[in-house]
Order: sequence, then structure tokens, then C-alpha cells
Amino acid sequence: MGKVFYRDLKLGVLGGGQLGRMLIQEAINFDVFVAVLDPSPIAPCAKIASEFVIGDIQDFNTVYEFGKSVDVLTIEIEHVNVDALEKLEKEGVKVYPKPSNLRTVQDKGLQKEFYEAHGIPTSSFKLIDNKSELSPNELPCVQKLRKGGYDGKGVIVLKEQADLSNAFDAPCVVEEVVDFEKEIAVIIARNESGDVKSFPIVELEFNPEANLVEYLFAPANVSEDVNIHANEIAEKLINALDFVGILAVEMFVTKTGEVLVNEIAPRPHNSGHHTIEANITSQYEQHIRSVLDVPLGATDAISAAVMINLLGEKEFEGDVFYENLNEVLAIKGSKIHIYGKKQTKSFRKMGHVTVVDQDLEKAKQKAKEVKSLLKVKA
Amino acid sequence: MGKVFYRDLKLGVLGGGQLGRMLIQEAINFDVFVAVLDPSPIAPCAKIASEFVIGDIQDFNTVYEFGKSVDVLTIEIEHVNVDALEKLEKEGVKVYPKPSNLRTVQDKGLQKEFYEAHGIPTSSFKLIDNKSELSPNELPCVQKLRKGGYDGKGVIVLKEQADLSNAFDAPCVVEEVVDFEKEIAVIIARNESGDVKSFPIVELEFNPEANLVEYLFAPANVSEDVNIHANEIAEKLINALDFVGILAVEMFVTKTGEVLVNEIAPRPHNSGHHTIEANITSQYEQHIRSVLDVPLGATDAISAAVMINLLGEKEFEGDVFYENLNEVLAIKGSKIHIYGKKQTKSFRKMGHVTVVDQDLEKAKQKAKEVKSLLKVKA
Repeated sequence: MGKVFYRDLKLGVLGGGQLGRMLIQEAINFDVFVAVLDPSPIAPCAKIASEFVIGDIQDFNTVYEFGKSVDVLTIEIEHVNVDALEKLEKEGVKVYPKPSNLRTVQDKGLQKEFYEAHGIPTSSFKLIDNKSELSPNELPCVQKLRKGGYDGKGVIVLKEQADLSNAFDAPCVVEEVVDFEKEIAVIIARNESGDVKSFPIVELEFNPEANLVEYLFAPANVSEDVNIHANEIAEKLINALDFVGILAVEMFVTKTGEVLVNEIAPRPHNSGHHTIEANITSQYEQHIRSVLDVPLGATDAISAAVMINLLGEKEFEGDVFYENLNEVLAIKGSKIHIYGKKQTKSFRKMGHVTVVDQDLEKAKQKAKEVKSLLKVKA
Repeated sequence: MGKVFYRDLKLGVLGGGQLGRMLIQEAINFDVFVAVLDPSPIAPCAKIASEFVIGDIQDFNTVYEFGKSVDVLTIEIEHVNVDALEKLEKEGVKVYPKPSNLRTVQDKGLQKEFYEAHGIPTSSFKLIDNKSELSPNELPCVQKLRKGGYDGKGVIVLKEQADLSNAFDAPCVVEEVVDFEKEIAVIIARNESGDVKSFPIVELEFNPEANLVEYLFAPANVSEDVNIHANEIAEKLINALDFVGILAVEMFVTKTGEVLVNEIAPRPHNSGHHTIEANITSQYEQHIRSVLDVPLGATDAISAAVMINLLGEKEFEGDVFYENLNEVLAIKGSKIHIYGKKQTKSFRKMGHVTVVDQDLEKAKQKAKEVKSLLKVKA
């Protein structure tokens, strides 16, 4: 096992959003000094980081200088300057996840090629440089920008010829439309010593308009076969990547029971928020354990849970106001997480609520109540 | 219900120790701005408070000025300037717990008189001004300083005549020695609207030398009668005090099954640490809910738990070092809380570990392992 983390260890985090915020909440238990780099002085981490540095996470020098000041460097968003991370890695800074992994994940084309090269099941695809390469006989298909997409942005479903005019005119992955029955996710972690542990599989329900997770159900209602197979895939993938940290693996379960990897995220992820309350170890604590190379924590569920994303109501923009928050606090088992963003806008991720209950069906009912009560307005 | 807490609400906390630290960890979920006042620039809250003010919590002007800058003022230690709090209360600042309650609790003599006046069962006692009032025919007895004691300090057991020379020569409570079978605690909360909720009873085991909690077991192994009776006493007490916030009620269960109140603490308490992981709502979240006057959270246990205080090893003093921390992290269900104090000394509270397990007996076994492995040294 590597460096002990209990004396003056400095953990650097690129990005100061809600994922960094929840990471800090757990890091406090380990008394780790957390330095955060983010361009916004009012980022969710600004007031709670041990040290908060304002700067561009995509700028080489800014990232390099920040990285030189810490012992271990990690991320909470993957759109960061990887060249700087590579230089830091060469100079002996521990950078987890590894820059090479970030390069692969930043480019959805490279992601797909990686799956193909390593026998990881995924939907069939082709890579294009611009929209002239799209032909009507490939419809319907999903077009994804190779780079820069996040939170449901950079993805479009092209159904008929008329949609082609809306297609992205940039390097893209073009995928077949998967006729899936469910979307599931495996959150899995690996530390520097190679220990691997995954959390119980969860099921995701998306907001069709915003293409964002709306509900998460834990545990997922899947067959034992799917369960085993999905875990095997996630484990194969994290080892093939020689990955260190938390890896979120989003998958489709097709109507014929096939499991296909959709996308991965090299960090704590929306589909692991519920682990804060519902599992012995949270994904945030597990990420810290992974990158500091201490033994991974037990991932067992201690409760069923439903997670509801609090997205800004469509067409409300400005100073945020949470309608009926008190009513939601009165629901037994509702756990509220407000991310500290002052301004809301359509579908912005402003917080989440996890409802814990030993009975998943009861948790689902309560989650519906939360959803119908709590509105993020301006 | 009172003021909503989700927009620019400023919560002030007197004291910046570990209780404030764990309070902040929960306050982050509610996006409450937490301002902390503490005399030490390296207090456990210093790096994570939204605003950290260095100042004397026992000084009238310092507390008054700090209180004027917040919307709701609370404490994480009861040794604060109550005169300033009374003035703030008169001027409309919400001060919870109420200054009158703090005055009662600060003085163990007034505490005892309060129990007597309100029919709260407690051991028999007398109040003395100095040690000349102690007579040999009262031995054995427990002598407690009326004011200023904390963390096991300010309490002495006088067994035989020779001990009288060690007695405190100051205003004290002199209590009969209770021949107890168990020490238990009820953590109970009340909000401004008068809602009351208590956590399941826990059992405490003390370090005899340091007079500090060494182990906490949740749930307590007590009869249904004791359970009901202890809860009734705690509820009667919190209502009699017209208390707002978390109240920790430490009790003795005598060998004849009687329940006697020993002491109370008007804030989150050592005997509620396990609620962070083992209950739907933690005592820290409950304290925040109470003082902000929103609905109280469900207190149900989701797991059995044993809490182990990490006390500085006797005769080690200096820069802290946690021996075998990695080994403890490898124990399934061990949850570590390091308070961020740089210097250890004999019996200083440096952190705690909560072991969660659905089976209390297994949790106890693991707790013994933790205790034998983890040493706080310098």
C-alpha cells in the first residue's frame, strides 16, 4: 500500500462542481487536505475546499502549476487539460485516473474503439468527421460528438431524413439505436494495488427531453444472469484500462438480455449518488480510497434507494428557489442534497434527493411524491 | 414552520471542534452558510466552515458581534458567553438552544435542581460551596464541579476518607454513587414548532481512567420497560426545558431497573456519532433541522453499530500518527472519522470509528479488532 494519507497529504481536484463537493464531504472524514481548481469563484466547492484556486482546468499552465502543488491529483470532470496531466505524471505526481485513460474517455470515438479492441460488448458504430458522411440508409441512429459533450448535451437521435439537417457537423460517433429494455450502471473502483470492487447494479430512468438521469433505482430489477454478466464486463473493462479510481459504466440491457456498454465516466457519477446513504461505503469515499491506495471499502447495500435528480424547471432562469422543500423534508427517508448553485436554468443539475427505504417499492412511491412536490424555480 | 433555509441563510456556530465539523458536513447538504467562531486558528472547523472567525467564545463582545452577523445562532460546546446570547435573543436573533437552557446546563447544580423541580428521576445529591462541607459519613460519593467540567474532567469519585484531600475545593454537586448496571443515552430533538423525535437508545462503556466514552453500542441491550421509560423521561425533559435543538440525555439503569438521569448535553454528542451511518437521519442533520425549524427527520436505525472513540494514547504528545489505519480500513463496515487535530495528548478525542453491521455481535467483534489495532500516537 502506498502513501499514508493521514498527515499533511494534499489531494488536488480538477473541477469544483457537485461531485467535488460530495467528495470533499467524505474527505473530511479522512482529514485529507483538498485543493480544488475551478474557473468559477462561486463553484459548489468554493466555500468548503481546504484551498480553492480559481483557474481554467483546460489551460496547460494552470493545470500544471496546480498539479505541482499537490501529492495526488484527481478530477471530478473529465474535460481537463490532459497534456498537463501527462507532464505531471512523468514528473512523479500521482495522477488518478491516469491521463491515458482520460484521453480515451474524452473522445467517444476512442472509447468505442477501446471496447472493440478489448472484446467489451457495445453497440455497432462508425466514426465520421462531418455530417456529409451520414447517409439516409443508416437511419435511425444516434449521433454523438466525439468530444465536449456532457450532461446529455452533444447527443442527438436521428430518426428520419429531415433530422439530418440538425445533425452535428463535426467528428462524431454514429451508433445504431439500441432497442433496450433497461439502462443500468455499474459503479466500480480499483486502487493502485489492483484491488477491484463494484457496487450493486442500479437502474436508470432518463428524462427524454433533457437526456439526463431523472430517477435511479437501487437495486436494479435485473436477472441474476444480467447481474453477473454486467459485473464481469465492468471488471474486465476497469482492468483493461488499468484504471485507478471510480469508474461509472453505463450499460443497456437489450430486450434479448444482452448487456452492452453505452458510455463510461472516469469519476464519481450521477448513478452512484445513492451510495452516500444506501451503501456501507459511498462512491466518493471509494474514490478517495482508490486514489490514495488504501484498502477499498465494502460496497454492500444497507437499504434500497431511489435517487431523484433535482433539475432546474424548464424555462426558469435566475436566483434559485426550491418549492415545497419543507414538505419533502417531512417524507420519511428523504435525504436532500442541494449543490449550492445560486442560479438555476432549464434542466440544470441543482441537487438530488435520495429516498431510502428497506422496501424499494415504498421508496419508489415516495420518490414520485418528491418529484411531484419539489420544483426548482427562480 | 419558520424561515426557509435555502437562500442565503447564515447559521452561526459557537465552537469549532469535531462536533462543529460533523455539523458542517451535514449542513453542506442543505447549502446552509455556516459561520464558526473559535479561538484556535487550527480548530477542526477552520478549513471547512463557510466563514471562520477567530475569537473567544466566552467573551461577551466577541460573541455578541458574531451573533449579530448571523440569522440563527447555535453551539457545539456549552461553555460560551450566555449573557451575550441573552442580549442577542432579546434583539431578535434566533438563538438555539435557548440561553436559559444553556445557563441551566452550564451549572451541574442547576441541572440537578431542574430535574428535582420537574419530577425527572436522578440520583440524590446536595450542593456545596467548598470542600469543608464534605463529611466522611457521606462517602462514597461523586463530586462534580458545578461549572467548567468537560470530557470527563471535573468529576471525582471519593471512596474513603483519604480521598477527601483530593476533593475539589469549589462549588460542587455531591451525588450518591449509583450502583448502575448500564449507562445509556437517549439523543432527542425538538424544533421550534414543538415536534419531538428521539433516536433509539444506545449503551455506553466508559474508559475508567479517563472517564470518557470508549465504546457505544446501538441498539442498547435493555428491556422494553427500560426502553419506554427512558424515552418518556427524555421527552418529558426536553419539553420541560422548552428546548430547541439536539439534547443528549445520559442515564443510568440501576440494578433494580430504575432509570436515572445523570447529565444532559445541549448539542450533538459523543453518544450520537453512530447516527451518521447507522440511522436514516444523523444527530447533526437533526440538529440543523431543529434549529432551522423544518420537519424533523426519521430516526430509525438502518444498521446496528458500535462506535469507538479514538483517544490519544496515554503519555504520547505531539504530532499525531494513526497506527494501523490501513488495517482498520480493511475491516468490513469500519467508518473512520479523523477530526483534523494536528497534536495528540493523553486521552484527547482525536477521532472515532463506527463499525456498522446488521448483526450487533459481529459489530462488537470488529470493534474489538479496531480497538486493538488502531493507536493514536505521536
